[in-house]
Amino acid sequence: MSWYTEQWSEDCKFSVGYEKHLHSEKSPFQQIDFYEGKEFGTFFTLDGLMMVNEKDEFIYHDMIVHPAFATNPDIKKVLVIGGGDGGTAREVLRYPGVEQVVLAEIDEQVFRLCQQYLPITAAGVEEDPRMELAFGDGLAYVQNAPDASFDLILVDSTDPVSVGEGLFTTAFYNECYRVLNDKGILINQHESPYFPEYAENMKKARTKIKKIFPVARVYQYHMPTYPSGHWLFGFASKSLDPLKDADADAWNAIGLQTKYYNTDLHYGAFALPSYVREALDSEE
Amino acid sequence: MSWYTEQWSEDCKFSVGYEKHLHSEKSPFQQIDFYEGKEFGTFFTLDGLMMVNEKDEFIYHDMIVHPAFATNPDIKKVLVIGGGDGGTAREVLRYPGVEQVVLAEIDEQVFRLCQQYLPITAAGVEEDPRMELAFGDGLAYVQNAPDASFDLILVDSTDPVSVGEGLFTTAFYNECYRVLNDKGILINQHESPYFPEYAENMKKARTKIKKIFPVARVYQYHMPTYPSGHWLFGFASKSLDPLKDADADAWNAIGLQTKYYNTDLHYGAFALPSYVREALDSEE
Repeated sequence: MSWYTEQWSEDCKFSVGYEKHLHSEKSPFQQIDFYEGKEFGTFFTLDGLMMVNEKDEFIYHDMIVHPAFATNPDIKKVLVIGGGDGGTAREVLRYPGVEQVVLAEIDEQVFRLCQQYLPITAAGVEEDPRMELAFGDGLAYVQNAPDASFDLILVDSTDPVSVGEGLFTTAFYNECYRVLNDKGILINQHESPYFPEYAENMKKARTKIKKIFPVARVYQYHMPTYPSGHWLFGFASKSLDPLKDADADAWNAIGLQTKYYNTDLHYGAFALPSYVREALDSEE
Repeated sequence: MSWYTEQWSEDCKFSVGYEKHLHSEKSPFQQIDFYEGKEFGTFFTLDGLMMVNEKDEFIYHDMIVHPAFATNPDIKKVLVIGGGDGGTAREVLRYPGVEQVVLAEIDEQVFRLCQQYLPITAAGVEEDPRMELAFGDGLAYVQNAPDASFDLILVDSTDPVSVGEGLFTTAFYNECYRVLNDKGILINQHESPYFPEYAENMKKARTKIKKIFPVARVYQYHMPTYPSGHWLFGFASKSLDPLKDADADAWNAIGLQTKYYNTDLHYGAFALPSYVREALDSEE
């Protein structure tokens, strides 16, 4: 067995065992590697950072998608920015009411390799007639999209370095605001409160979004293969509040089976530790 | 810099950097090591497992202590089993209403070394006049304690191996039930749902406790330096329910400053992911 090791901070490393290094290439955008191991199954990294593995991808994909749908069960048009593994689109496509899903992933090669190596997230996505693959820059996509054309934007990006950087800017969040309709919701990466570098990015994202969206909350989940295992999404909206407007009965009536998300956890996820609250408020 | 590495599962390792290996000894009970690093400060391990570090001990100690006090603000007599680092006693002693705290730690050397190397958890504990140090076996301590003599038992133990093993048995939980009074609460290690070995121990603890205590819930928290970062405590009680009986206003009126715990998070922590709920129910 070999070890894939990720530096979570200067003084912290996380390692996952693998049997095979399935694929390695430098795309025009980033370094892509696929591995296969026993406990975590197949997993891939971008620029040396764990993105998706078969063991816990369900946690991330449940949490990026379902809280928005429990808040607005009428979501029809969804824009996924990033999300090249297909897992976010997969979860969105489970809702029968969804009419259109656009996947604006900058690196088509990530999607193609996931179709080959990671069917758990990518299989069936391209074939769904509601799906539109729009490979290209996410920021450019929203800049060119008409006003009020989406109910939901899911920013399923890497950290704010390299290709992910533009997706953590005020210009990008402003464009998201514009292309969302009156009940529009933006879910985005909010990084993590525990390690200083990630906490800085968390605060920066928070500060920018709070200035633009009237509703701006943050929710947490346990994602063991991301740095510190304590990971956050931002929930921003033009009008809907994920605590006051969520309809647990309506969501449960849809009848989706989910392995991580449930409507009790929906409310619980917004109850953040005091040190996280304080960090989020510190740059408001 | 050197690395302390812990095997979280067969295919997963976690490493923390340190500058100095401060102390290493084999006590009559276990292997004890203290290290000093930059990011995590001073930390110690028992039999090669991370117990306490300066960076995130506040998370564990907030979460083992405060949910019980928010559920019953009249707690006066507290038994801590294990907890040799002193951090749990430290948090309990912050409550002015507490009259007696017994620390039943099997390995006195852990406590003495923490007094020397880890004042963040151990300083001031021995000096508090409400404190009683009862170094010895925790199971024996409860066997010899009178009926209904405690309001709260906090089992701050290692995993169910070596010295911690007896603290995960039906015999022990039965004795805890007996020595708790009518409003008595038992908080205990419930391990973690993510890695199979820990999940097995979680289910075993759950199954045993649920048969003994009329109220038996489980709550979660983000503890990045424990395996998977997703860690659980059990909340068992003879009558008080941590959701229905908690009094957020009363707890907030005490005025304790806490870095992790708050009364919104109190409720949120009991909202478990679906896969955890199912695993907990699977052996009921």
